[in-house]
Amino acid sequence: MFKKILVANRGEIAIRIIRACKELGIATVSIFTEQDANALHITKADQAILVTPGPIAGYLDYAQIIKVAKWAGADAIHPGYGFIAENWRFAHACEEAGIGFIGPTSTAIRSMGNKIRAREMMATAGVPLVPGSPVLQTDGEAKDWAARIGYPLMIKAKAGGGGRGMRLVQDDEELLRGLPVARAEAQKAFADEAIYLEKFIAQPKHIEIQIMADRYGNTIHLGERDCSIQRRHQKLIEIAPSLVLTPEKRAEMGEVAKQAARQINYHTVGTVEFLVDRDLNHYFLEMNTRIQVEHTITEIITGIDIVKEQIRLAAGEPLRLTQDEVRLWGYAIECRINAEDPRNNFFPSPGKITKYQSPGGIGIRIDGCIFGGYEVPPYFDPMLSKLCAWGNTWEEAVDRMCRALDEYIIRGIKTTIPLYKKLLEDEEFRCGRYTTEYMENKIQQLSYEDLKEPFDLYYIAAAALFFEMHYFYTEMK
Amino acid sequence: MFKKILVANRGEIAIRIIRACKELGIATVSIFTEQDANALHITKADQAILVTPGPIAGYLDYAQIIKVAKWAGADAIHPGYGFIAENWRFAHACEEAGIGFIGPTSTAIRSMGNKIRAREMMATAGVPLVPGSPVLQTDGEAKDWAARIGYPLMIKAKAGGGGRGMRLVQDDEELLRGLPVARAEAQKAFADEAIYLEKFIAQPKHIEIQIMADRYGNTIHLGERDCSIQRRHQKLIEIAPSLVLTPEKRAEMGEVAKQAARQINYHTVGTVEFLVDRDLNHYFLEMNTRIQVEHTITEIITGIDIVKEQIRLAAGEPLRLTQDEVRLWGYAIECRINAEDPRNNFFPSPGKITKYQSPGGIGIRIDGCIFGGYEVPPYFDPMLSKLCAWGNTWEEAVDRMCRALDEYIIRGIKTTIPLYKKLLEDEEFRCGRYTTEYMENKIQQLSYEDLKEPFDLYYIAAAALFFEMHYFYTEMK
Repeated sequence: MFKKILVANRGEIAIRIIRACKELGIATVSIFTEQDANALHITKADQAILVTPGPIAGYLDYAQIIKVAKWAGADAIHPGYGFIAENWRFAHACEEAGIGFIGPTSTAIRSMGNKIRAREMMATAGVPLVPGSPVLQTDGEAKDWAARIGYPLMIKAKAGGGGRGMRLVQDDEELLRGLPVARAEAQKAFADEAIYLEKFIAQPKHIEIQIMADRYGNTIHLGERDCSIQRRHQKLIEIAPSLVLTPEKRAEMGEVAKQAARQINYHTVGTVEFLVDRDLNHYFLEMNTRIQVEHTITEIITGIDIVKEQIRLAAGEPLRLTQDEVRLWGYAIECRINAEDPRNNFFPSPGKITKYQSPGGIGIRIDGCIFGGYEVPPYFDPMLSKLCAWGNTWEEAVDRMCRALDEYIIRGIKTTIPLYKKLLEDEEFRCGRYTTEYMENKIQQLSYEDLKEPFDLYYIAAAALFFEMHYFYTEMK
Repeated sequence: MFKKILVANRGEIAIRIIRACKELGIATVSIFTEQDANALHITKADQAILVTPGPIAGYLDYAQIIKVAKWAGADAIHPGYGFIAENWRFAHACEEAGIGFIGPTSTAIRSMGNKIRAREMMATAGVPLVPGSPVLQTDGEAKDWAARIGYPLMIKAKAGGGGRGMRLVQDDEELLRGLPVARAEAQKAFADEAIYLEKFIAQPKHIEIQIMADRYGNTIHLGERDCSIQRRHQKLIEIAPSLVLTPEKRAEMGEVAKQAARQINYHTVGTVEFLVDRDLNHYFLEMNTRIQVEHTITEIITGIDIVKEQIRLAAGEPLRLTQDEVRLWGYAIECRINAEDPRNNFFPSPGKITKYQSPGGIGIRIDGCIFGGYEVPPYFDPMLSKLCAWGNTWEEAVDRMCRALDEYIIRGIKTTIPLYKKLLEDEEFRCGRYTTEYMENKIQQLSYEDLKEPFDLYYIAAAALFFEMHYFYTEMK
C-alpha cells in the first residue's frame, strides 16, 4: 500500500481523498496556490505545499506537481476530478516518473478522451451508440451525414465534455449556421476544432453506471445514478438508484458498462454515461475515467467507499467483492450547493461566508470545503459543498433532503439552496420521471417569492399574562 | 397523524425530534428557559415558547408544559430523554388532558420505573434476572439475603437509575456500613430510601436491545447495542452490533426483550437493558421506556428512523415492518462529545465556543446542539453532540471514527474528544471485548501527552529555491 499520497486538487474532492487516506493510514500532501491559502483542504492534510502560479495554473502544471510529489516523498498522486484528472499526458508523466497515478493508464484515458475514438472502441465492444458521423471536414459532408442520420441533430466537439462545444440543430440551415460557431467554441475550449454530428435523443434521461475493475480481470458495477437534472449540461441534482430502471434493465446496462471497461483494459473506478430514451433504450454517451462528483450517492446506497477502493486498486489490490455481493439499500439524493445566485441567472457569488450552520442528523452526508469566516475565492469551481440525503424510500429521501435544505444556513453569499428548495417541492421532480430537458423549462417558471429563509436566532419578547404565568411567544418563521 | 408536536426538551434530542417532525410534515414547538435563550433547538422549531423558571425547573414543570402545548395548539408532546421523559405522572397528565404523549402509557412507565416491581413483572414474563432480594427493612434481613445470594453484592435503590444510589459490597461488614449510606443517597436522588440487594456480576458487558411495538400486538427488536464503555455509570461510547453476540444469541435476547415488552402491554419504542457475563448469560437490568441517547447507532445499522416510527406509533399507526424485514448492515460507533475535561477528572467545561468545525463525508453522522459562537450554559447535561461513524466492517468503523475525531474542532472549551482519540487507539477497545469495568481501569492509565491537536490554518512561508521554483513548505501537524 502507498505510504504518502499527494492530492493534486482542491476543494471538497481534495478533502474527500484526504479522508479516505486517513482511514487507510496513509499520509497526505495537499497543494495550493497563493489565492487558495485559506482553503480547508490545506488544514485537513498532514502537509501542504504551495504551487505556482495562482490562481489556477499551479493546479494544472503536472510537471511541477510530480516534482513536488517526489520532493515530499509521496509515492502516489490522486488527481480527483477536473484540472488534470483526465489529462493522459499527466498520467503518462507519472508512469515515466515511477510515481503511482490513482486512476487508469494513460492509454485508457487517451482512448476515452478522444470522443470519436471512444465511440469506435465502444462500437467494437458492442455498446449501443447514438447514431452519428465521423469527424467532419466540409459543410457538404455535414449535410450528407445529416441526411443519413436525420434531424434533430447535435453538433459535438471531438475533444468535448461538460457540454462545451455542443449545439442542437433542427435543419440544414441551422446546421450550416452552427458548424463554424461550434468549431470556434471547440477550438477555444479544447484547442481542437474537430467536430462531428450525433442524433438528438428527445427527452432523454442521463443515467450513468459506476464501475470498478482490478488488474486481475474482475469488473463489477455499483448500479446507476440518474443525473438528468442539469443546467447548461452541468449536473445539479443526482439520485441513486434511478426511479425508472427495472432490476433487469439495471443488470443489462451494468453488463454493458462492464464490457466497455474491459474493452479498454480498465482497472480502476470509472463511470459509463448513457442517454436513456422514453422506451428505456440506452445509448453510450461517454466514459469518465476518474472519480466523479456524484460518487457519494452510490457510496451511500451500496456502503462501498469508492475512493478507498480506488486507492487500493491503484496499489494493485484485487477487488474485495463480487457482483453478487453488491447490494443497493434505499435511495440517495445529492444537491450541489454552488456559490451562484439562482434568483439572478446563476450569477457567480464569491465572497465571505459570514455565518455557516450545516444540517445533520439521520441520513445526511455533507462533503464540503467551507466554514464560517471563509472567503470563497472567485477563481475556482463554484461548488461549495455536496449535500446528500438517504432514505429507505424515495419519499423519505426527498423529505429528508427538504428538511436538510431548510436547516442549511450559509450567509454572506448567494447559493443554489433556494433553487433546490423549490425543485424538491415540484411534483415533476418528486415523481422522478424528469428528463435532461426538465431544468431548462422549470427554471423559467420558478418563483422564489414565497420562500422562507431560516431566520437568525431571535425572539419577540411579548410578555403575556396567561394561565397565571409569563410567556414569551416566539414565531420563528 | 399529529398536526403539531411540542418538544418538551432541549439540546440535541430536541433537535433530533424536530428533524423527525419536519420529515413527517408536522409543525413543531420548542420550549426554553431564560438561561437557554441562545439554544439551537429554539431556531430549529417553527415556534418557541419560554417556560419558567430557569434554568431547569421550567423543563420539569409538566403541568405548565401541558398548558403551553394546549395554548400553542399542539396535539402531542414528545418528552425526549431525561427531564420528565420517564415521569409517569406527566404521561398520566397528558392522558387526562387529552393530549398525545409520544411514549408508553403512564402504567407502563410506572411499572418499569419501580425497579422492584419491574423485576417481579420480568420474572413473570420469564426474563432472566440477576439473583436479588426484595426491598429491605432491617440490617438482619439484609444479612440473611446476602447469605442466600452470595457476595459480591450490589446495594441498589428501588427508584434508581443512572447508577445513582448503587454500591458494591464484598462482605457483611461492608454491607452493614453501606446500607445507611445507600439509603441516604437514594432518598436524596429519588426521594425514596427503599433499597434492595442484587448479585454482582463480575466483568459484564452492558448490552441492550432496542424494541418497537404497536397497539395491535406486533413487537419487533432492532438488535443490540453494546454500551459497556461507561464512566461512573454514564455511557460514553456505544457500538452496534456487539462484537461478542452470535446471531443465535442476538435472536434469543431479542425474543426475551420482546417478551418483556409484551408483559407490560408496551406499544412504542423502548430499550431492555441486560448484563451479559463472560459465558454470554444475560440478566435483565432495567427497561428504559423512552428514546435513548444511543438510538442513533441502531438507526444507522438498520436504516430505520426510530424517532419517526415512535411518532407514528403514538399516532396509532401499526408497525411498518416485520422482524424478518429488520436487517443489520455494518457497524456503528457513537462517541458522546461532552463539555468535560478528560485531562482534569472530567471537570465540567461550559463557556463560549470560539471555533467550531465538524467532521463530515462518508459514514459520519452528527447530532449536535452547538455552533461557533455558542455559549455552553453550565446548568444542563454536558453532552454537546453525538458523533457517529459507520463502517462495512468493525475496523472500518473504528478507522473512520478516528478520522472524524481528528477533524472535529471545538475551541474555547474542553471536550471529551481527546479521551476518545486515546480510547480508539487502545487494543482492548479495538478487540471489542471490553467490559463495564474497562473504563475505570483505563482512565488511570491514559496519558494525553503525545496527542496532537488540530492546528489552526497557518503556513510557514519558507521560500525555497527548488527545482527552479519557489515553494512554501507547510507542515501542519
